[in-house]
Amino acid sequence: MKKIINKPENFVNEMIEGILKAYPNRVKCINNDLRCIVRSGKKKPGKVGLSTGGGSGHLPLFLGYVGEGMMDGCAIGNIFASPSSSKMLKVTKYIDNGSGVLYIYGNYGGDKINFKMAANMAKSEGIKVEQVIGNDDIASGEKSNKENRRGIAGIFYIYKIAGACAEEGYPLGEVKRVAEKTCSNVRTLGVGLSPCIIPGVSKPTFEVGKDEMEIGVGIHGEPGMGRGKLKKADEIVENIMNSILNDLPFKKGNEVSVLVNGLGATPREELYIVFRKVSQILDIENINIYNAYIDEFATSMEMAGMSISLLKLDDELKNFLNKPANTPFFKQTELK
Amino acid sequence: MKKIINKPENFVNEMIEGILKAYPNRVKCINNDLRCIVRSGKKKPGKVGLSTGGGSGHLPLFLGYVGEGMMDGCAIGNIFASPSSSKMLKVTKYIDNGSGVLYIYGNYGGDKINFKMAANMAKSEGIKVEQVIGNDDIASGEKSNKENRRGIAGIFYIYKIAGACAEEGYPLGEVKRVAEKTCSNVRTLGVGLSPCIIPGVSKPTFEVGKDEMEIGVGIHGEPGMGRGKLKKADEIVENIMNSILNDLPFKKGNEVSVLVNGLGATPREELYIVFRKVSQILDIENINIYNAYIDEFATSMEMAGMSISLLKLDDELKNFLNKPANTPFFKQTELK
Repeated sequence: MKKIINKPENFVNEMIEGILKAYPNRVKCINNDLRCIVRSGKKKPGKVGLSTGGGSGHLPLFLGYVGEGMMDGCAIGNIFASPSSSKMLKVTKYIDNGSGVLYIYGNYGGDKINFKMAANMAKSEGIKVEQVIGNDDIASGEKSNKENRRGIAGIFYIYKIAGACAEEGYPLGEVKRVAEKTCSNVRTLGVGLSPCIIPGVSKPTFEVGKDEMEIGVGIHGEPGMGRGKLKKADEIVENIMNSILNDLPFKKGNEVSVLVNGLGATPREELYIVFRKVSQILDIENINIYNAYIDEFATSMEMAGMSISLLKLDDELKNFLNKPANTPFFKQTELK
Repeated sequence: MKKIINKPENFVNEMIEGILKAYPNRVKCINNDLRCIVRSGKKKPGKVGLSTGGGSGHLPLFLGYVGEGMMDGCAIGNIFASPSSSKMLKVTKYIDNGSGVLYIYGNYGGDKINFKMAANMAKSEGIKVEQVIGNDDIASGEKSNKENRRGIAGIFYIYKIAGACAEEGYPLGEVKRVAEKTCSNVRTLGVGLSPCIIPGVSKPTFEVGKDEMEIGVGIHGEPGMGRGKLKKADEIVENIMNSILNDLPFKKGNEVSVLVNGLGATPREELYIVFRKVSQILDIENINIYNAYIDEFATSMEMAGMSISLLKLDDELKNFLNKPANTPFFKQTELK
């Protein structure tokens, strides 16, 4: 795996410098600290602040969703490593408008410890802080222990819906309630076909045989439900959809948003071949597709593979999903 | 290279079916012909029609740019193969509103022959047809023979600017003039790090050594200026920018739009590391960046690598570049 990079130790900061240069009217860093990114421009008085954070190597996650209609700030760690609590606190203090801050992040040990520390420090300075932790990956834990599951591409929906809710001026408790509802209504499962290599590290994050795939791979290459022989697209999708539909469970008459996420190296053509089968299965199940997102939303650098997420909608979630957003990595006009 | 596909011979049609299912309010096919894609919804009376076409395997090119503010229709070929003139004609007849149709496509032998035949057939049916052929790839011919150069990612700018011009109701001659100006103001050069494999074909489109890159690779894996040792990102960008800046030439005081395009498998992180250096070089050259697009715009399935495009702007081009667009693969609100 060949990379277009300079010194591996500069990978993250140079990437952030590039983003700041590309979108000066959209995002900026706080006091020259590249690891603390917030929206450019004027803050909206009284708006609940939404913050996220996590390791690098997952673009558009996490910082790519800082912008209008979605997040207000993001603390950025090294590749696949949590940012520090002090960076999180810095972002928290900057984005707070007196109405409190909601943390939305993925369910990973380091992030949980650091966001908890940041929340405690922020509270001691008089800032109200709440948190919602994405845990959509059904491969990483039993349904009875959903709180053990990892957060992967489905966190996009929490950003989008909580973002629209906060943008409309709802108070912290309401934004948190809507984020939690989204979190409990979204399920994701994916497959990994090839690993990635962390810059400066000599070997891949995992190995997978020439004709194999890892079912339920995590976005850091964590093992999922096990290896399988690489199958045809339609069979892969059938297996994934079977697991997802049974997990919530999604039922006849439900309305869903579908997200097909590329892990980094998988061509968009293949993502649409995947979506084709997803839509056929949902038709048979009498589950209505409200809309679809098909692109790279949460990646592992050059990992090949994809994941499918389903979000069960109701009128409230649809209303917020439908609102416009405009961030460096995600743009949406009103859907309907 | 592993793929998430079904039968190779169904790759293109299944991909198109997925796109049509995903965006029913944006695009549709003509009379169940999957290879002829046009905008959904009502046609704008009197609007000049914009059509494109080309081989598959390059998403978002070509069909991904059919939509509001950009193209009206697209004829779709097999992987890396021109669509037929009869498909092009079908699209032409559908999108014509009596104001004529402009073809915008890349400079490839098969496409040129077929679009010329389609234009002749359309003319014989009383439709005015003009064409502008993208030839932005400076690796593929001498500047003195610009008409021999291939069209690659820079064609995005022709779609965007001609699209905005047509949307505003300008007549065919004006839309063509603006498209030609864009074409003559854009330059692209890229590097390929790894090849792609056409579904159903057993070997890659080209071979490149473990520590090598192909400078000026085409989006079908065509050879460019030759092989080089894989260098650091900043050195690669310096070499590319040196060639691009000297070619137009771009000069002190110019204002440009920058497009950094991933060829398919290259992580976004690396594209931003590339853009960082592009912006540093333009700063030194006293060339002002009006805006930047950094994403996948013209790919070769799972090929690794990237290209840099510069578009020299004037007030007219800026005005059109700035207009909103909303297609399945490209969304923009007004920039400034």
